[in-house]
Amino acid sequence: MQTAVATAKVLIGGEWRESDAEGVFEPENPATGEKLGREFPLSRWSDCDRALSAAVEAAHALEKTPPEKIAVFLEAYAKELEADAEAIVQAAHEETALPASPRLKDVELPRTTDQLRQAAAAARQGTWRRPVIDQAKGLRSCYAPIGPVVVFGPNNFPFAFNGVSGGDFAAAIAAGNPVIAKAHPLHAYTSQRMAEAAGRALKTAGLPAATVQMIYKLNHENGARLVSDPRIGAVGFTGSKGAGLKLKHAADTAGKPIYLEMSSLNPVLFLPEGLKENAQKWARELADSCTLGSGQFCTRPNLALAIAGDATEAFMQELTAAIASREPHAMLSSTTRDQLHESIEALQQAGATLLTGGKNVPGKGYRYSSTLLRVSGKNFLKAADGLQREAFGNEVMAIVAADEAELLQVLEHLEGQLTGTVYSAASGADDALYGRLAPVLRRKVGRLLNDKMPTGVAVSPAMNHGGPYPATAHPGFTSVGIPTSIARFTALQSYDNVRPDRLPDFLRG
Amino acid sequence: MQTAVATAKVLIGGEWRESDAEGVFEPENPATGEKLGREFPLSRWSDCDRALSAAVEAAHALEKTPPEKIAVFLEAYAKELEADAEAIVQAAHEETALPASPRLKDVELPRTTDQLRQAAAAARQGTWRRPVIDQAKGLRSCYAPIGPVVVFGPNNFPFAFNGVSGGDFAAAIAAGNPVIAKAHPLHAYTSQRMAEAAGRALKTAGLPAATVQMIYKLNHENGARLVSDPRIGAVGFTGSKGAGLKLKHAADTAGKPIYLEMSSLNPVLFLPEGLKENAQKWARELADSCTLGSGQFCTRPNLALAIAGDATEAFMQELTAAIASREPHAMLSSTTRDQLHESIEALQQAGATLLTGGKNVPGKGYRYSSTLLRVSGKNFLKAADGLQREAFGNEVMAIVAADEAELLQVLEHLEGQLTGTVYSAASGADDALYGRLAPVLRRKVGRLLNDKMPTGVAVSPAMNHGGPYPATAHPGFTSVGIPTSIARFTALQSYDNVRPDRLPDFLRG
Repeated sequence: MQTAVATAKVLIGGEWRESDAEGVFEPENPATGEKLGREFPLSRWSDCDRALSAAVEAAHALEKTPPEKIAVFLEAYAKELEADAEAIVQAAHEETALPASPRLKDVELPRTTDQLRQAAAAARQGTWRRPVIDQAKGLRSCYAPIGPVVVFGPNNFPFAFNGVSGGDFAAAIAAGNPVIAKAHPLHAYTSQRMAEAAGRALKTAGLPAATVQMIYKLNHENGARLVSDPRIGAVGFTGSKGAGLKLKHAADTAGKPIYLEMSSLNPVLFLPEGLKENAQKWARELADSCTLGSGQFCTRPNLALAIAGDATEAFMQELTAAIASREPHAMLSSTTRDQLHESIEALQQAGATLLTGGKNVPGKGYRYSSTLLRVSGKNFLKAADGLQREAFGNEVMAIVAADEAELLQVLEHLEGQLTGTVYSAASGADDALYGRLAPVLRRKVGRLLNDKMPTGVAVSPAMNHGGPYPATAHPGFTSVGIPTSIARFTALQSYDNVRPDRLPDFLRG
Repeated sequence: MQTAVATAKVLIGGEWRESDAEGVFEPENPATGEKLGREFPLSRWSDCDRALSAAVEAAHALEKTPPEKIAVFLEAYAKELEADAEAIVQAAHEETALPASPRLKDVELPRTTDQLRQAAAAARQGTWRRPVIDQAKGLRSCYAPIGPVVVFGPNNFPFAFNGVSGGDFAAAIAAGNPVIAKAHPLHAYTSQRMAEAAGRALKTAGLPAATVQMIYKLNHENGARLVSDPRIGAVGFTGSKGAGLKLKHAADTAGKPIYLEMSSLNPVLFLPEGLKENAQKWARELADSCTLGSGQFCTRPNLALAIAGDATEAFMQELTAAIASREPHAMLSSTTRDQLHESIEALQQAGATLLTGGKNVPGKGYRYSSTLLRVSGKNFLKAADGLQREAFGNEVMAIVAADEAELLQVLEHLEGQLTGTVYSAASGADDALYGRLAPVLRRKVGRLLNDKMPTGVAVSPAMNHGGPYPATAHPGFTSVGIPTSIARFTALQSYDNVRPDRLPDFLRG
């Protein structure tokens, strides 16, 4: 494309304005490798600085805004997204190569608007404030907005985790915080289109114009500076461990709460009695789950664990065949594919054996062959760090332990995970073993599953999309599930002997 | 004292054992400067290592322990402390120079046992688990113990914040976590005596012997290693900002949640109409509060703010006289006094003027003259960082702003605080001004007070003994107030499609 295109604008202080850019980037269609004919800015610090000052003003204005208006905004935003669904889905499809239907149109967009509406309900009900009144001591407490929230969205969900529309966004807004969204450059136009919808909804609801702001890209130094700026309240981040840990270091040093969802291998245990009956069925379920959407989900199963035996060998044969037969789809970018390949090479160097896959697929689109690795429990224990390198994509590694004791040792050596799953015999024949393994797995994971793959993450008040480090940076919080996820963006405030007419409404009496 | 004394033992794995010590220290009586004839060990890493391994075992055993037993332990511990009250109070009095009565015997010890009993009630009720059941989606969630908790107690509360008996201890235990207490060397024997009581209570309740462990002192390197050890779940710390930030860096880098209560100036605003009526009364209240216990409270008022005018000058005169007339008591140690003096010198170098005090008091005991400093709002704004240096002790600095606008600017420049207080006219004559100032102060503090000094910290479910950085490291948590404080030592756990008989009792149905 040689047409001269205007660089997209950034949304700061309620206006789409020219970025003070230090460069530009041109997104491409990962299914074809062709440029999409659009240009987006790499913002200088001055863009952040303006957004931060506007966010502070908005935060103060939001303190005086009735929750009803926030709810109206979130609902109006959901409606605006639905009204523009066709264009948004098309944009995301072009930018990510994810299927327009069912994935984007029928699953992710409805999930996103549902999440916004759940956040609206939570804003209206105000249960997140958890008011406590101790009349005898004249003390009252509640949770309050924490201040401007910076949200970094990931590459793999253009809607549901997008900094300008996803779970962190909805949770931060529900508690009355303005959001500065750092869109992911891999779906810049999708984000622009959504931010435009947000802008219209802000007008409908009459919220401060700087309640929602958005920039597209920052260099690392400015990213670190943004999360440690005195003007912010907290940060939400979903993405890679490498990028996440850099931001965490900056935020920690500045004393800013940062919530990161970084990495997870989502181990799935297949217990021996159940495997005897279900080797084929479970192998196919696993193959489907770890290759779905090219495995580009935080909760795809990346590790399968079993105890050596005939049933396990049968399972491994079925699994090898099933994985080999799954057609790879285009990944989100050439970088995503390159990183997957590097990880698979590194896992082999650390001691895993390649059973199928392990290479780029030629032709259009950044496709990678669905991959299965295998390692013994003994060899895993020799290199437990290297063999827990995340391979983000359509890959799974089977760890076959010699016996129960070795399997327990493997579990003890697992890092913190978002999820952990146990498949076992319906008859109860594995139950005694489950009783010995599950407590160890339970301590390592945010969500424990039985008999189903972990990839789906329901937006439910009982969801935990979180887990011990390094899955996240704090095991007490979830990034999915309303109202629980809202707690991340709140500060505890007490009122001691404060005169009645000076108290917030919900703390009177 | 030249009597050969045995070095005290450390409590590890349920036994009082010889420390693998790299040195010893001999506590003194700060009221006399004389050694107390006791010797305590500076532990090597091997002491920590043993304690950590024992704590992991205890944590696993506690997972299977009925909450009733934990409650029984906490109540039995409270009883044991009461039974040994005379000796414990005497020990603390000798080690800290704090008055045996009313402070230690009639205030702090009852507060401590009350806190243990409130924690017992919370353990029994289990509300801290906050169970959520989503039957439609087959999802359940609750909070669970986070794992072994390391608690660093401060110098200023030998009972109520002691690592082996205070608020962090009670909260961590209530959630089913074992505690490794790092006693404060300034009340080592008091801590030993309390840990002995805890040991007896563990036997009464039949809890794992390593549920409570204690060491006395560590070098900085081992302290940092302890808070970043993979075997721990979280850390609670109360103490200086310098020590706290070092531990925070280590824990953050290892991905371990650390809760710190570090520093606070606790600003108190005196509004002009009220000052006209109350200059003398308020000056005396402030003088009493900031000199109480030699000002060695996290919540002592260290900053007084007012707008220039005749009433403020009258207030300043009263305050100068009142502060000058308060007899200083012995401080906790020579170091505490030295640091207070250094801070007062530094505040003067940064622009404050000394009105009274500012020097060591000769004679027995580490006493420091009660001190009042003054600075204009304009000069404060020129050196807002240097003038917010904490002076831990019987000192207060008055900031006199030229007008409301300057006072607002001063408030905007305040760091995060545990508390912020506004005194105003009972008539309502200051209410319009309150309405403009309070929102700014509210954002800076964990607890907002009206018309009373902030020094008292009630153990109430509505208390917030926390606040924005650097008062603490996360504004969403409190270290005082049950059950709220328990949340710090818990992890969120979901159960997805888990078979009913495998669920915790309280998540069935």
